[in-house]
Amino acid sequence: MQKILIANRGEIALRIMRSAREMNIKTVAVYSAADRNALHVRYADEAVFIGEAPSNQSYLVIDKIIAACKQTGADGIHPGYGFLSENAAFARAVRNAGLILIGPSPEAMEVMGNKLSAKAAAMQYNIPMVPGTEEAITNVNEAKQRAVEVGFPILIKAAAGGGGKGMRIVDRVEDFEEQMQLAVSEATSAFGDGSVFIERYVSSPKHIEIQVLGDTHGNIVHLFERDCSVQRRHQKVVEEAPSSVLTPQIRERMGQCAVDVARSVNYTGAGTVEFIMDEQLNFYFLEMNTRLQVEHPVTELITGIDLVKEQIRVASGEALSFTQNDLKINGHAVELRVYAEDPANNFLPDIGTLQTYVTPKGPGVRVDDGFEQGMEIPIYYDPMIAKLVTYGKDREEAIERMIRAIDEYIITGITTTLSFGKFVMQHEAFRSGNFDTHFVKKYFTPEVLNEDNEQEAMIAALIMERLLSKPQNRVAAASSEVTAWVKNRKEI
Amino acid sequence: MQKILIANRGEIALRIMRSAREMNIKTVAVYSAADRNALHVRYADEAVFIGEAPSNQSYLVIDKIIAACKQTGADGIHPGYGFLSENAAFARAVRNAGLILIGPSPEAMEVMGNKLSAKAAAMQYNIPMVPGTEEAITNVNEAKQRAVEVGFPILIKAAAGGGGKGMRIVDRVEDFEEQMQLAVSEATSAFGDGSVFIERYVSSPKHIEIQVLGDTHGNIVHLFERDCSVQRRHQKVVEEAPSSVLTPQIRERMGQCAVDVARSVNYTGAGTVEFIMDEQLNFYFLEMNTRLQVEHPVTELITGIDLVKEQIRVASGEALSFTQNDLKINGHAVELRVYAEDPANNFLPDIGTLQTYVTPKGPGVRVDDGFEQGMEIPIYYDPMIAKLVTYGKDREEAIERMIRAIDEYIITGITTTLSFGKFVMQHEAFRSGNFDTHFVKKYFTPEVLNEDNEQEAMIAALIMERLLSKPQNRVAAASSEVTAWVKNRKEI
Repeated sequence: MQKILIANRGEIALRIMRSAREMNIKTVAVYSAADRNALHVRYADEAVFIGEAPSNQSYLVIDKIIAACKQTGADGIHPGYGFLSENAAFARAVRNAGLILIGPSPEAMEVMGNKLSAKAAAMQYNIPMVPGTEEAITNVNEAKQRAVEVGFPILIKAAAGGGGKGMRIVDRVEDFEEQMQLAVSEATSAFGDGSVFIERYVSSPKHIEIQVLGDTHGNIVHLFERDCSVQRRHQKVVEEAPSSVLTPQIRERMGQCAVDVARSVNYTGAGTVEFIMDEQLNFYFLEMNTRLQVEHPVTELITGIDLVKEQIRVASGEALSFTQNDLKINGHAVELRVYAEDPANNFLPDIGTLQTYVTPKGPGVRVDDGFEQGMEIPIYYDPMIAKLVTYGKDREEAIERMIRAIDEYIITGITTTLSFGKFVMQHEAFRSGNFDTHFVKKYFTPEVLNEDNEQEAMIAALIMERLLSKPQNRVAAASSEVTAWVKNRKEI
Repeated sequence: MQKILIANRGEIALRIMRSAREMNIKTVAVYSAADRNALHVRYADEAVFIGEAPSNQSYLVIDKIIAACKQTGADGIHPGYGFLSENAAFARAVRNAGLILIGPSPEAMEVMGNKLSAKAAAMQYNIPMVPGTEEAITNVNEAKQRAVEVGFPILIKAAAGGGGKGMRIVDRVEDFEEQMQLAVSEATSAFGDGSVFIERYVSSPKHIEIQVLGDTHGNIVHLFERDCSVQRRHQKVVEEAPSSVLTPQIRERMGQCAVDVARSVNYTGAGTVEFIMDEQLNFYFLEMNTRLQVEHPVTELITGIDLVKEQIRVASGEALSFTQNDLKINGHAVELRVYAEDPANNFLPDIGTLQTYVTPKGPGVRVDDGFEQGMEIPIYYDPMIAKLVTYGKDREEAIERMIRAIDEYIITGITTTLSFGKFVMQHEAFRSGNFDTHFVKKYFTPEVLNEDNEQEAMIAALIMERLLSKPQNRVAAASSEVTAWVKNRKEI
């Protein structure tokens, strides 16, 4: 491939362009009216305007993406994550246009895009599943009978769903009918498909996922696990690799299962097989994401593999240049998604202008972002500002580095998840590894964040500036100002 | 240690503070009048003003540094590199004040601070030396006779020297007397010590150095080599680890030699044993630097060891937590020193204000710097703005990443070595590994840099800005503006 179009925006568009540039491949950006001044547009070798701000008028319009490719002579398309990345119709349109999609086949997307067909594919390889129904159910009585067999608490899930929509936990058989009807109607309105399935509810689950990579020559490897159990609103916010709870034996078994799931659909490119893990470290297949994950950098840091470069190589028809045995885990990596959200207000988006924006630097810190000082976070898209990723020789060092990096990160004008991230890093449950997907619900209340942090930081900065403008030793001066400054500093 | 004072400034002061913060150790900055608004002052928990801008009134004044420690209650001092870092009198004063120096003993500094005593110490362990005199010489006739025995070309070197001062290459016996007299008088005026020694001149040398680390319990390990052969004005500008020419056998032998040199002075803390290597891969002891090196990050990246943390642990009396066998090389790292220097004008300092200052980000990029946009590079100190370090799974990837990172780095207002760095990364001799310390002299002329780069970049940015302000597809427009923009873009 000589030139690729990146059908995405923000940090992931930049991240993909960086790898392309290192491979001496030209890049084409696409952008909506809201992204006219975005960094991904500046970074690309060429850029094509594709429509108004709402995604369904720009980033989601298949014809516009393909037309932009034709215009610029791009041979391949990288869809990033979100938008069209798991859209089989898009993958098919790309193929029909004689272009290369940097991703799996439309067939693999289709099978894995539906929870039931995904389960059916995985079952051929005896992948462990949470006990439950194997087929979509609409009949309430039949469903109730199965629920009793599986055992309460049970979970009702939309077959076509995601993000927690159409999902219900039922603790007692008496509540079953009502909850099932609610789930079906929620699923129908959200996805246009009311079919659900039921399974045993794992009450203290960890979210563990395995990165896989397949080529067009039949080779599939896994790149170990990521623990993404710290979630808010059923969405990941802190991820790490490796997991602090897996044993080498379980890691190997999960890795083999993930490779088998990928093999069930002749998977090519980078994909992720998600599992749920209970307190006894039993793991069950959840779903497969047929694209690059947001949290892929933690895997890159512990394996030394550039996943985007591998995606491009595989899409070009190259065989993987390494085998499973070549892959080793080195050190530990943690990622915090820095969202323009207010943790003190139920993580609601808090968009606006980045009045101050200074990113952390130094050893073991990687920042993947899509903004710079003075820029606005558009309301039209996911409010993620950046991914802050730290790496250390062990988990302890990666976490201490994350705290240091959070302290260095200066964002004003917008409330972010940085303070929440620091709370997580300092929490005993996270430090010990003894946490599950209920971490936020269990431990987090807005009160745990010192809401005056930002104000204190500003006061400290002002005092410091005043002190620094005087040539005398400000520590020796021991004035009340200094005391206040040091005090503030400690609390920030 | 609860609190440490960093007796330095710029990037290295920040870099040390970052590790201290990750260890939950408080930091004290010292600053001169020129550094009142410097980042290291802002980063520290406390800061002490220690005098006017010239180093001999601030950063080099031992009493002021120790007084600042006493005032702030710091228990330890990290000297960084340069300034007082290899000053045995300072090390002794710190010890006498009941404080801990994060560095080796004054005795080790003293032995290694003089080329002849350093050689004598190393000789106890049969470390290979360039053939030459073992003792300082002042008698010209005696020197000439030894020069003939050693064989021309020979090198005359100041015993107390460094940085190329008091150094002379003599190709023919007829020139010897005149050159020797010049070297002696240069050494006398530069170091107050006219003693010199002579050795065989290695005409195509590589500069290979080994990082060592010793604790107070008698353990000494090495952390492999760095190749620092790309130099200008006898000063390093590009470094990498590992070297592209070493075999595992030579690496092990050099590592063992370096450990032996360190053992000869009961070395504690981080140090570097420098070797010169000829085309046949014979290596000869050059000197030992008894401090942290500028280029230590490349070693950190390939070993996963935070050298500053190790320095602090060792200074606290802890034993090393790893053995030689635990240390492995992973991947490849390259460092470019980004100096405020004009490569087109013999690398003369080009200080001023950083009008635009945007650092690169993304996978495998580490920036250690001490400035931000709008700051001035003071004329009083070393004109290094930043260290740009890239890491990849192999040398090729680290180099491609360095080129990508150089392209992302935007500095206006000051001429820097970034363009020179790109020249090096793209040069066939560097790519092949077939280069020595004469790289710059052999290959570099100002003409190889496209001096219009900056202007072109500005034009392209302006055109692009104009284009982006229009909502239509600017590629489809195919206007002459677009063509010009793409053309400019390609050439930058």
